[in-house]
Amino acid sequence: MRDEFRRALATAEDTLAELADIAAAAVAQATVALLDADKDAAENSLQQNQALRARLTELENNAYDLLALQAPVASDLRVLVTVVRLGADVERMGSLAAHIADTANRGSVVPEPLIPVFRQMGEVAQQMAIDAAAALRSRDTADAGRLAEDDDTVDRLRLELFSQIAGDWPYGAQAAADVALAGRYYERFADHAVAIADAVVYLVTGVTAE
Amino acid sequence: MRDEFRRALATAEDTLAELADIAAAAVAQATVALLDADKDAAENSLQQNQALRARLTELENNAYDLLALQAPVASDLRVLVTVVRLGADVERMGSLAAHIADTANRGSVVPEPLIPVFRQMGEVAQQMAIDAAAALRSRDTADAGRLAEDDDTVDRLRLELFSQIAGDWPYGAQAAADVALAGRYYERFADHAVAIADAVVYLVTGVTAE
Repeated sequence: MRDEFRRALATAEDTLAELADIAAAAVAQATVALLDADKDAAENSLQQNQALRARLTELENNAYDLLALQAPVASDLRVLVTVVRLGADVERMGSLAAHIADTANRGSVVPEPLIPVFRQMGEVAQQMAIDAAAALRSRDTADAGRLAEDDDTVDRLRLELFSQIAGDWPYGAQAAADVALAGRYYERFADHAVAIADAVVYLVTGVTAE
Repeated sequence: MRDEFRRALATAEDTLAELADIAAAAVAQATVALLDADKDAAENSLQQNQALRARLTELENNAYDLLALQAPVASDLRVLVTVVRLGADVERMGSLAAHIADTANRGSVVPEPLIPVFRQMGEVAQQMAIDAAAALRSRDTADAGRLAEDDDTVDRLRLELFSQIAGDWPYGAQAAADVALAGRYYERFADHAVAIADAVVYLVTGVTAE
């Protein structure tokens, strides 16, 4: 029974890593949509989010089925609880990428001087999701440190957006609102990637990352 | 052993309900801070968030300790996994209230015509957290329906903010960004309250709310 449980858990963890990779692709496509007003990229991003959600439901149902097996020991259950919790993180990453794609679909255009800022945010966010997936697969706690650094980069880029909005801003209120919200979406996307890496640290060490 | 587990679970659920009540108070104080530029209210809100986070850590540690008990049956484990997951929801509610309080602390002032919109958002958000706490205590699935209606109200109020920003907006880019973000914080706060009510439906019926 224990072997059966562990195999199913390992499958659930692999699925979670695949979902984080899908989230990485979704945010990359959403960034293309936002910066190049590319409707196809927006559609790709939204479809990736749908795919992610469908597989997540499957993952969660499997996790709850695992609870019906009576043999699991505490350490296995800890992994299972964490998998369910991280499922919520990757779900949010997909939703946030979809919000960015929706912003593009509403015809919102990023003001020219901010394009490099958003491009970098998109690249870092994508890399963070890829690294979170890698951390899930490798259970390497060193990845968590790198993700924290990248998270600082995203926060710094977001402050750059705010300082532009607070300065001389000739692009109107609507663009200010869209830029502020899009910046928020990338920031939250990055936070969820960090949460995944921190959970890997927890799974390996049993100690919560601070 | 099973009785011990169930008592501990019941305690965890009660704690979760208390945390939702704290989140309700935190968003109410944050709204006062935002609308009346009231520094004391902002400080109260931030302290409530700190209190919520401290108790949540305790709740989570207790939940993981419960996993060390070897006897739990599947239905009990399902409740435990849900409690851990909802812990993440109330944590976000506290953080979102804190973001609103921080917005007030940065000296952001809501333009006069939008004050009634934010006041209503604050009232509905507070009530939703109170209702989510009540749903956790009563396990009454009827509460979930009411929360979904209130969530629609918050979404409608948020659209009202956007239509103001998109129209004739004489308050500048910074105010547009602040209003858009604050609206987003209330919307997300409401979403988490709905997630709690939906989880109560799941706990009672075993069927995921759509």
